[in-house]
Amino acid sequence: MRLRGKKMTEEMLQRLSGLMVDEAESYKGRWAEWFGNNRPIHVELGMGKGKFISEMSVLHPDVNFIGVDMYDTLIHRAVEKAFVVWKEAHGTAPMNIALVRMNIEHIEKVFADSEVERIYLNFSDPWPKKRHAKRRLTHPEFLKKYLQLLNERGEIHFKTDSRQLFEFSLNAFSDMGLRMRNISLDLHAEGPAANNVMTEYESKFFDQGVNIHRCEVIVGERALQEHVHKLREILRKY
Amino acid sequence: MRLRGKKMTEEMLQRLSGLMVDEAESYKGRWAEWFGNNRPIHVELGMGKGKFISEMSVLHPDVNFIGVDMYDTLIHRAVEKAFVVWKEAHGTAPMNIALVRMNIEHIEKVFADSEVERIYLNFSDPWPKKRHAKRRLTHPEFLKKYLQLLNERGEIHFKTDSRQLFEFSLNAFSDMGLRMRNISLDLHAEGPAANNVMTEYESKFFDQGVNIHRCEVIVGERALQEHVHKLREILRKY
Repeated sequence: MRLRGKKMTEEMLQRLSGLMVDEAESYKGRWAEWFGNNRPIHVELGMGKGKFISEMSVLHPDVNFIGVDMYDTLIHRAVEKAFVVWKEAHGTAPMNIALVRMNIEHIEKVFADSEVERIYLNFSDPWPKKRHAKRRLTHPEFLKKYLQLLNERGEIHFKTDSRQLFEFSLNAFSDMGLRMRNISLDLHAEGPAANNVMTEYESKFFDQGVNIHRCEVIVGERALQEHVHKLREILRKY
Repeated sequence: MRLRGKKMTEEMLQRLSGLMVDEAESYKGRWAEWFGNNRPIHVELGMGKGKFISEMSVLHPDVNFIGVDMYDTLIHRAVEKAFVVWKEAHGTAPMNIALVRMNIEHIEKVFADSEVERIYLNFSDPWPKKRHAKRRLTHPEFLKKYLQLLNERGEIHFKTDSRQLFEFSLNAFSDMGLRMRNISLDLHAEGPAANNVMTEYESKFFDQGVNIHRCEVIVGERALQEHVHKLREILRKY
C-alpha cells in the first residue's frame, strides 16, 4: 500500500480532486459552500491515514468532516481509505469529507470564528521533551485558537496513548477553565469502548493492551448549559 | 507493633487524652477554641496510621491538623506515630494535631460551614464495585458536604494508587464544576515528588513502583481567584 513512488493514476487524481481542498484558506468562513449545506463541521487535527474520519463520516451523515494533516502522502492515504470505506458502506464516493493539507499552527487561516462545532485530537504527537511543549496540540496556545474557532456547541474530543500528554492536557484544559466530561484513563478497560471509532494507532494499541486515555472538553456556552442541565438531573437523585 | 490485646499503659492514656477528641461534635464551630488559636484547619479524612498527618504537622506549625478515622486501633497508632515524629523533630509532645474517631459520612456534625481550609484524601478506599460508588470519598454526595465545610481558601488535595478511583474522581470534580490543578498521573515519575509527604501506603507503593495519581481541587472563591491570577501571568507570556 506504499504510495511513495507509486504512479498517480487517473482515478486517483479524480478522487483527490474530489476530496482534497487545495486552497483551503479561500474557504475560511465559507465551508458550508464547499459542502453545499449547513451541517455542523467536525475537524480532525492530524487525521493520519484517515480510518477514523472515514468511518465517522459514514456513521454521521448529518455532519461534515474535515481532516487536516501536514503531508501529501497522508492526504493520499486518507483519500484512498475514504473511498474504500464508503464503497463498502454505500457503494458510493464519500459525501461529507474534505481533506486539507496544512500546518495546524495556522488553523485560524482556514476556519472563521465559530465555524467549527467539534475538534478531534486523536493520538497527537506527545512531544515529550519540555522544550517542545509548545508543539503539543493541547498547549494553551493551540487551545486559545480552538476556542476562537469553536461555536456555541463546541467540544474537543481528545484521546491518546501517552500518559504524559494526557496529564499535560488535563492540566491545560483545567488551567484554561474548560470543563471536562467523560474522562477515561483506560478507555477499553472492559473491552472495546461503545460508540468509539478506533484510529489505526488505536487498533494496534488495543491489540497490544496499551492503555488509551480519553476525555471530552466542553467549550461552547450552549454545550456547557446542556451538560450542566443533565448533571443537575442526575445529582437531584442524591 | 500490634495494638490489639496490648495493655493500655498510663503513658498511652495520657497521650490519647491529649490528642484524641472524644466528643468531637461539641467542637463544631469551635475548633479554634480546642487548638487555642485561629490557624487554618486542615483535615485528613482517613488518616490511617498517622504518618502523613504527623509529618505534616511538624512541617506546617502554622496549620492545625485534624485526622479522622473510624477505628480506635488507628487512632491509637496515629497517636503513637505523632509522639514519635514530634519527639524526633522537636523533643516535645505534638502541638497542632487532633484526632477524631468518626464515620466520615457524618462529617457535617463535627465541622461548621467554612470551618475547614483544606481536606486531604489520601489513598481512600476505592470501593471498586459500582453498587458501592456512594461510599467513595469523592462521590458527589461527599463532595457536596466538603463544599459546605470549606472556606474561601478551601482546597481538596487528593492522591490515590487506584486508577479507577482517580478516573471516577476527576469526573466527579469536573461534573461538580470544580477547578483542578496540578493533576498528576504518575506523581513520582522523576523520583520522589518534591514537597510531598508520603503516607504509609505511598512509601510501600513507591518502593514497588506502583503509580500514584494526584490532584488538587480548588473550591474556595478566593483560592480560585488567586489561581486564575497566577495563570493569567503565565499565559500572558504566550
